[in-house]
Amino acid sequence: LPSRLPDVGTTIFTVMSALAAEHGAVNLGQGFPDFDCDPKLLDAVTQAMREGLNQYPPMAGVPALREAVSAKLDTLYGHRYDPGSEITVTAGATQAILTAILCCVHPGDEVVVLEPCYDSYGPNIELAGGTIVRVPLTPGTFRPDFDRIAAALTPRTRAIIVNSPHNPSATVWTRDEMQRLAALLRPTGVLLISDEVYEHMVYDGRPHVSAASIPELAARAFVVSSFGKTYHVTGWKVGFVAAPAALTAEFRKVHQFNVFSVNTPVQHALARYMADPAPYLELGAFYQHKRDLFREGLGATRFRLLPSEGSYFQCVDYSAIDEHSTEEDFCRRLTTQAGVAAIPLSPFYAEGFQQRIVRFCFAKKDETLQRALDRLARL
Amino acid sequence: LPSRLPDVGTTIFTVMSALAAEHGAVNLGQGFPDFDCDPKLLDAVTQAMREGLNQYPPMAGVPALREAVSAKLDTLYGHRYDPGSEITVTAGATQAILTAILCCVHPGDEVVVLEPCYDSYGPNIELAGGTIVRVPLTPGTFRPDFDRIAAALTPRTRAIIVNSPHNPSATVWTRDEMQRLAALLRPTGVLLISDEVYEHMVYDGRPHVSAASIPELAARAFVVSSFGKTYHVTGWKVGFVAAPAALTAEFRKVHQFNVFSVNTPVQHALARYMADPAPYLELGAFYQHKRDLFREGLGATRFRLLPSEGSYFQCVDYSAIDEHSTEEDFCRRLTTQAGVAAIPLSPFYAEGFQQRIVRFCFAKKDETLQRALDRLARL
Ligand SMILES: CSCCC(=O)C(=O)O
Ligand SMILES: CSCCC(=O)C(=O)O
Repeated sequence: LPSRLPDVGTTIFTVMSALAAEHGAVNLGQGFPDFDCDPKLLDAVTQAMREGLNQYPPMAGVPALREAVSAKLDTLYGHRYDPGSEITVTAGATQAILTAILCCVHPGDEVVVLEPCYDSYGPNIELAGGTIVRVPLTPGTFRPDFDRIAAALTPRTRAIIVNSPHNPSATVWTRDEMQRLAALLRPTGVLLISDEVYEHMVYDGRPHVSAASIPELAARAFVVSSFGKTYHVTGWKVGFVAAPAALTAEFRKVHQFNVFSVNTPVQHALARYMADPAPYLELGAFYQHKRDLFREGLGATRFRLLPSEGSYFQCVDYSAIDEHSTEEDFCRRLTTQAGVAAIPLSPFYAEGFQQRIVRFCFAKKDETLQRALDRLARL
Repeated sequence: LPSRLPDVGTTIFTVMSALAAEHGAVNLGQGFPDFDCDPKLLDAVTQAMREGLNQYPPMAGVPALREAVSAKLDTLYGHRYDPGSEITVTAGATQAILTAILCCVHPGDEVVVLEPCYDSYGPNIELAGGTIVRVPLTPGTFRPDFDRIAAALTPRTRAIIVNSPHNPSATVWTRDEMQRLAALLRPTGVLLISDEVYEHMVYDGRPHVSAASIPELAARAFVVSSFGKTYHVTGWKVGFVAAPAALTAEFRKVHQFNVFSVNTPVQHALARYMADPAPYLELGAFYQHKRDLFREGLGATRFRLLPSEGSYFQCVDYSAIDEHSTEEDFCRRLTTQAGVAAIPLSPFYAEGFQQRIVRFCFAKKDETLQRALDRLARL
């Protein structure tokens, strides 16, 4: 059987989590919390199941959840999405992004991605028969380079994928940067896939500038987010897409023949739980504390800290500790010898670019972070 | 935006469920139970959530669930799938089928489907860039016509999709038919996508002949099933695929970049619940009772009953009641005027073939079936 994805192996997240488990390492690799979600959210799922809400929900999502998402996007980003025709609940953000790509990318279309980027984007574009156009973020700072983005746009460009707060670099696009993107796309018909799964994790008073908040971008954007990341339930696999009605109509054509719909009791529970905005409004402060604790501890090591403006990731340069190892080798040794798992940055690049930077996830209990720091201090 | 699926509208299931709700009709259209699942299964989900099993599961599925599936397939069909490399948990059977198609169909490959067929198959093949080759089941009996299938195979045929027990016709392939399929595929490299979501709903002592039970087929098959249908929780969106390791490896490459993984607590709950085989072993008798009740009641109407050998569907010919209406028009009137929703067969055909047959779903409480029968008797 000739492969449709000949270059794809097992994701680095799975590989490193398995290695961490095998060696009893503190797992700061794959991005997920090691603490529990609010028990109220669990109880809401139980409640919905007991109410008999266990059969197919509407294909686009439970109406109350779409209304809750619409209200949130209106309050936070000032854009009023119609819950009936502009919001769709998905089986996580990854499914949302594949579905967005499949519904708009025709064979031969070009899709611009900014490297480093999440490892699903490339294979997603390949599966749609599209051509991946890779534009590097500025080396060192990971900020968008608009001259290079402009140079990459052609009449064949169908879409660009942007991700802020950014995985893996933890940069957050400023309003100015989002507006430069808007200006650049203005004369084109290029669509925007805006991966905003870390929307509520921004630090030091920075705002998250959603594509939804800039009308010119909202008009051409699939805005993607994740309930799993916001509510500490990454294993529930539930997210959403907000997009203008014309885009949503195409999205749903593919969605209905991909997963058709998403877990019913979980959707009802989220709808009820979202009535209180506190959990997502307080998320930034919650994670900023963890970021600060982790950065302070790393100050006692020879890692050089990169900025962490948003997301639950902290990147570090390990050159002062090990000048020669590839990022993979360094992460393997860090896991097996120092007992702390991290993720190399190179798998976020098609060509496996090496810059001696690795990524830690600080979505962990304070004591987990402390245990990791104790081990890292011994390096 | 040019559409990737220009011919696709909203699925007939959504359309008819909405119409039924609007008119307070008894909904025997879309296939889902109107009764609850075993409370033990709900409690098992609650239990798993409380145990903190809420973060990403392994990409291929929770090991205990894959082991339970493997044991079931071994006991029932005599094929030992390796849970590590040959079973993958999916976000429902629909996602499993799209993923199987995306991982093996290259642009220009042909995929054979037997009409009438489930409405996702065609768009799934289109999205992969494949060519749909439609072979009719024998008109009237809906049995496979092996001469026509043989004639449809070419050097470009990548796969054939087979569905038994069959939606919408409720036929069940015999062992002889499955063996003829095996013989026909023997000299070819054609893959089999075997949609077996109604595997436990077979009647009158008929066996379900899984592709897993015929070694020659198992060696080339993606065997797809659905926990949602087996356990009365269609809204939980969870299914599985069993396939030889080489096929599973390709399947997982796409799966990990589609949904990545499936709801963690639901998987743990299913694994525990499957320890008792009674629920699925007793499912045939459970639904046979409903089928018999429903068929007996329909005997008092002018509908002509087709056989229902398996699945939870009953097809009827309405010629004696209405000679002229299209199936869609008949279903609309049945819903709005008689107060019973059904599904026309024509959307299961690309060309909307009309044969005055509609499909009822009898996965309903006995009193729901009785209420529908009372209304149908007045026609
Ligand atoms: C789906 S596993 C990867 C989780 C994640 O988003 C990350 O670690 O970057
Ligand atoms: C996913 S809605 C359709 C349910 C079903 O399988 C059917 O009614 O045929």
